[in-house]
Amino acid sequence: PEKFNTKVAEVSKSIKKLGKDDPRRVIHSLKVGLALTLVSLLYYWRPLFDGFGIAGIWAVLTVVVVFEFTVGATLYKSLNRGFATLLAGALGIGAQHLASLFAEREEPIVHGILVFLLAGASTFARFFPGIKAKYDYGVLIFILTFSMITVSGFRVGELLEMAHQRLSTILIGGSACIFISIFICPVWAGGDLHNLIASNIEKLAAYLDGFGEEYFQISEDVECVTATKNDKSFPQEYKSVLASKNTEESLANFARWEPGHGKFLFRHPWKQYLKIGAFARQCAYLIETLSTQINSEDIQVPAEFVRAIEAPCTKMSSASAKALKALASSIKTMKIPIAANQHVEDCKCAVQDLKTAMESVALESLDLLAIIPAATVASVLVEIVNCVEKISESVNE
Amino acid sequence: PEKFNTKVAEVSKSIKKLGKDDPRRVIHSLKVGLALTLVSLLYYWRPLFDGFGIAGIWAVLTVVVVFEFTVGATLYKSLNRGFATLLAGALGIGAQHLASLFAEREEPIVHGILVFLLAGASTFARFFPGIKAKYDYGVLIFILTFSMITVSGFRVGELLEMAHQRLSTILIGGSACIFISIFICPVWAGGDLHNLIASNIEKLAAYLDGFGEEYFQISEDVECVTATKNDKSFPQEYKSVLASKNTEESLANFARWEPGHGKFLFRHPWKQYLKIGAFARQCAYLIETLSTQINSEDIQVPAEFVRAIEAPCTKMSSASAKALKALASSIKTMKIPIAANQHVEDCKCAVQDLKTAMESVALESLDLLAIIPAATVASVLVEIVNCVEKISESVNE
Repeated sequence: PEKFNTKVAEVSKSIKKLGKDDPRRVIHSLKVGLALTLVSLLYYWRPLFDGFGIAGIWAVLTVVVVFEFTVGATLYKSLNRGFATLLAGALGIGAQHLASLFAEREEPIVHGILVFLLAGASTFARFFPGIKAKYDYGVLIFILTFSMITVSGFRVGELLEMAHQRLSTILIGGSACIFISIFICPVWAGGDLHNLIASNIEKLAAYLDGFGEEYFQISEDVECVTATKNDKSFPQEYKSVLASKNTEESLANFARWEPGHGKFLFRHPWKQYLKIGAFARQCAYLIETLSTQINSEDIQVPAEFVRAIEAPCTKMSSASAKALKALASSIKTMKIPIAANQHVEDCKCAVQDLKTAMESVALESLDLLAIIPAATVASVLVEIVNCVEKISESVNE
Repeated sequence: PEKFNTKVAEVSKSIKKLGKDDPRRVIHSLKVGLALTLVSLLYYWRPLFDGFGIAGIWAVLTVVVVFEFTVGATLYKSLNRGFATLLAGALGIGAQHLASLFAEREEPIVHGILVFLLAGASTFARFFPGIKAKYDYGVLIFILTFSMITVSGFRVGELLEMAHQRLSTILIGGSACIFISIFICPVWAGGDLHNLIASNIEKLAAYLDGFGEEYFQISEDVECVTATKNDKSFPQEYKSVLASKNTEESLANFARWEPGHGKFLFRHPWKQYLKIGAFARQCAYLIETLSTQINSEDIQVPAEFVRAIEAPCTKMSSASAKALKALASSIKTMKIPIAANQHVEDCKCAVQDLKTAMESVALESLDLLAIIPAATVASVLVEIVNCVEKISESVNE
């Protein structure tokens, strides 16, 4: 029983954490509960129930399947579902009509062939990247509705009534979902994308911010090397930027379905976000290389050389961190990044400083092998500066 | 009409390409068509139809929703669907029994509260990463079935019969899917994962293979610089490795549902594949840094220095390419990578060679700024060698 108690405590702790990390999750759960209860209460309402009959169950089904976390995803699913049902219904009635021209014994065969052809073709269509991204769910519902209609074997007259019922119940379910998801604490995919991109850039800035000082502390202080090897002193959040591509793409996809809201107008340039995201990822790859440099075996770097490049390198990393921070905040407030442009200029100056510093180093006294790691860090920083410049250009657009 | 013709030609071309790229897609489409036709023909078979009544439609629905590209995904969905329906059915009957204890007027309220609580709790459960990865679809079906049962307002006796019908039709649909997906040209998620990891490693090898020679050709030959700037000479396939994390994880997830097949035993170490995949990605990040180095502004590297590091660098990159190729083929054949170990040793030798070469370079005559890019390439190559070593260790396990 004691084991059980600790287990319960653990689970309840992780539940709390999940809710605290993003309170919108709790709200979303309540919203789904609310939508389902509303729709099912409609079902109990006699006058309506008599009108729809058993078909009312489809409203419940629609709510469960269609209600997603973001407004964009909910719209995507409900619109796809609605139009696919409409299209498949029309085609299904056509197929039924076609089959009724044959003798009764041959009807099942005609149905079988039609279902085989349409299901095969639609399934293949789902492999097209363009269709997969935008209409995957719609094609699925299309196959579903079409085969259900042809298989059911009803006459055309019955079918029209059934189609009417199903469409109106789907309409009720779908509009309940859309209404609740938009008007009760909406979670906009576009807003999420916006924040994700800004916070990704901030994560990169957080790493670069302390990098210069930390790195040169390691290089100078011999005793410190083993202590900082586990590099806990460096923020590791940037790692999540490395793998954020899929999240960004699906959010951008859903954002396209959303109506204009808040700061975002109707045709907001979501593609631009993907571009900035790609540059940020490029930058994260470079940071990853920097961090492998730090973790690799330390060679004692000559103090003379370190002193020469310390100032420009620290400046490069701190100026790019400042530039990234300014860019992130200008994305957040949607203003033109004037401050960031200044920081980018600073970065470029630092790169020039580094070049002059290197030229003035007295080469004779140096061990080439020993300076390579520090030199690598310096040149990767230069690349990062280039990358920051590209991000800044895209934000300006 | 001419425009229309070219459009048609384009579409048919892209259809052909899609089919040629992976012929299993065409086969999959045919399999879905076959499964649907089979199940719907069952529906026409009088004795069976009379037994199931309208519930036979659920078999069709199950096939459409459950049939996925890989065996693992199909098993995941059909098992989740089956068990979730069973559980939700039992709970739903319990809820119905509970509600029947109240007065008739209060019943809808009890139902409403129960649906609200269960739907909210289950929706929240879907946010847990563990549940999301393994049972997301099951929880969805659970909410669906539970609310449909409570809403339908049937008596317990009717419900038992309905539950029996639904479960047996889902069983028919699900087993048809599983049977067809396993026995007709199966697509195993495990096999796909296996091939994906091996081909990812091969892509890295393809880049490194020519890298040494190409890079030093650029450095030496001044006129060549602008021509090779677009770096079409370097294979760009490695870029897909950068973003392969999600694909790998979902394949590993589905692979866990698959029974032992072919070369894979029942509890095949799928997690090990994810580990190798992560190291391969690490390596791809480093290659990305290399390629930004190549594309950045070229500074004329002194020929003397180039000559010193050319041999060891070329050897490092070609030996790591060979090691990666050997590892990929040993993954494919599932044999212990003896050849690869030899190549890894070669890499380590090359690293040592590079160190001696650097020590012997006459520093006085060099421009430090000019050698930095080449030196960076060398040191990133050293990191790649480390990475290759880690991959080789994981493959050995």
